[in-house]
Amino acid sequence: MKHIDRLIEAIERSGNPTALGLDTRIEYLPKSLTDELSDSAAIFKFNRTLIDALFDIVPCVKVQGACYEMLGAEGMQIFRDTLFYAREKGMVTIADVKHNDIGASAEAYATAYMNADSPFSSDFVTLNAYLGFDGIKPFMDVCEKSEKNGGGIFILVRTSNPSDGEFQDLVVQGENGSSRPLYECVGLKVGEWGEDFIGMHGYSSVGAVVGATWPEDGKKLRSLLPHTFFLVPGYGAQGATAKDIAGCFDKHGRGAVVNASRSLLCAHKKLKTDDFASAARDEALRMRDDLRGVI
Amino acid sequence: MKHIDRLIEAIERSGNPTALGLDTRIEYLPKSLTDELSDSAAIFKFNRTLIDALFDIVPCVKVQGACYEMLGAEGMQIFRDTLFYAREKGMVTIADVKHNDIGASAEAYATAYMNADSPFSSDFVTLNAYLGFDGIKPFMDVCEKSEKNGGGIFILVRTSNPSDGEFQDLVVQGENGSSRPLYECVGLKVGEWGEDFIGMHGYSSVGAVVGATWPEDGKKLRSLLPHTFFLVPGYGAQGATAKDIAGCFDKHGRGAVVNASRSLLCAHKKLKTDDFASAARDEALRMRDDLRGVI
Repeated sequence: MKHIDRLIEAIERSGNPTALGLDTRIEYLPKSLTDELSDSAAIFKFNRTLIDALFDIVPCVKVQGACYEMLGAEGMQIFRDTLFYAREKGMVTIADVKHNDIGASAEAYATAYMNADSPFSSDFVTLNAYLGFDGIKPFMDVCEKSEKNGGGIFILVRTSNPSDGEFQDLVVQGENGSSRPLYECVGLKVGEWGEDFIGMHGYSSVGAVVGATWPEDGKKLRSLLPHTFFLVPGYGAQGATAKDIAGCFDKHGRGAVVNASRSLLCAHKKLKTDDFASAARDEALRMRDDLRGVI
Repeated sequence: MKHIDRLIEAIERSGNPTALGLDTRIEYLPKSLTDELSDSAAIFKFNRTLIDALFDIVPCVKVQGACYEMLGAEGMQIFRDTLFYAREKGMVTIADVKHNDIGASAEAYATAYMNADSPFSSDFVTLNAYLGFDGIKPFMDVCEKSEKNGGGIFILVRTSNPSDGEFQDLVVQGENGSSRPLYECVGLKVGEWGEDFIGMHGYSSVGAVVGATWPEDGKKLRSLLPHTFFLVPGYGAQGATAKDIAGCFDKHGRGAVVNASRSLLCAHKKLKTDDFASAARDEALRMRDDLRGVI
């Protein structure tokens, strides 16, 4: 079974196309946790408690590398422990590291993330394609392997930040006088690279990151890339609503998983409570119903 | 003093625009080292011995993240130890991680690399600009700070791999019917971003990665970007010669640092000796003279 099929089925089972984004920062934690533990221990306890509170209703977790790397080798251990704990609980895991390198270095990153016995073993990893296919192939070579190794990737196509258009919107000349924005060119390549990795539900293990903050672009990419699954950041704290994301789904309500980080991790702050697990669960249920309303 | 000036002066002092690329893989090590030590310990001993053998003739070291990340948290500790040991020996350090993220995540990466007390504190870090200025600014904010924190960045403009043209060569429409390849558009942005960070030698702490394997492109970018310092990968094992790189330097023989990894790390293999330190030193001297011949 391809990892993309595992992700799709986990979403169907829970009826919830949401990823819990563990971009955990020490300042997100309630004082009760930070008072009693070291930063690293507190962050891992926070992550573990959130996973325990959400794994039955949220099918997927995205763990962002930067927040752990800033804590050094100790932080990288928590990064690993978080990925492993989430998988143990049955969640599909995405290591959000946006790696991009070539040849031996890309192989080394694939070795770090994509095998069952990798130190940071994950179901999916995020990548940047500026270096072309050389930076992607070593990961796809692993996608091709057995179910046990498996794995999938999400390649940055359209991001959700204010300056995303600086390069992504550049107009690229095609043949016969046609033209497209750069992000569509990247998207079409991602679709092409993924053709041999399409699973039983019609989507490929080679997916795309498509930001939620540009509804029209999401809709356009959905129609251009019928077999490309989307990882959609930008919901909640970054400003996108369920309505903005609707176009990223296909007519069966499939085709995308929506990440929420701060709106889940910091739900307790809004409610002025230390019970961050209950606050996150309530917010996750609200988000699920919000998404269900548009797909 | 800006970090770019430190780099330029270290290059002038040694008369050698070379970076030792510590993309260290266990298979590069002589058996004598791997027999007696764990993988991580052997790799650190190899790196330390190479730094000891080269620091007086090679001014700069580039440590590539993937080879360490594949060894997990233990590997990340060696990544850190290698960066710190090289700096202790007076070498200018580049953390080659090609990070790319936005907002809080980009700030977290900057915190991980760019301050004097960062866990992976480095003089320079490599970045990918596909997300636009949002992914660069948090690093530049650190570049702006005191000499002590300082720091600089190298942004991927033109890489040196076979598929680099897949996106980098796409023809972008400009105003008034003009057009340029994408990598030139990225290069021009890098030049613009770096304008406020130009040091006393006329180069900016915001530099560019320009692969050695495209001599004409290097020459073109050198004339387009008179204040942008280039980190040039691709010499040696990747196939580029000193002559291919000549165009990356300005008329004073400044403006670039050339990375060599495998040709230095594996010099002992060619000579069928275990004395990797002497073999690397001989090769580093040969490379220095080779580069001196063209600049």
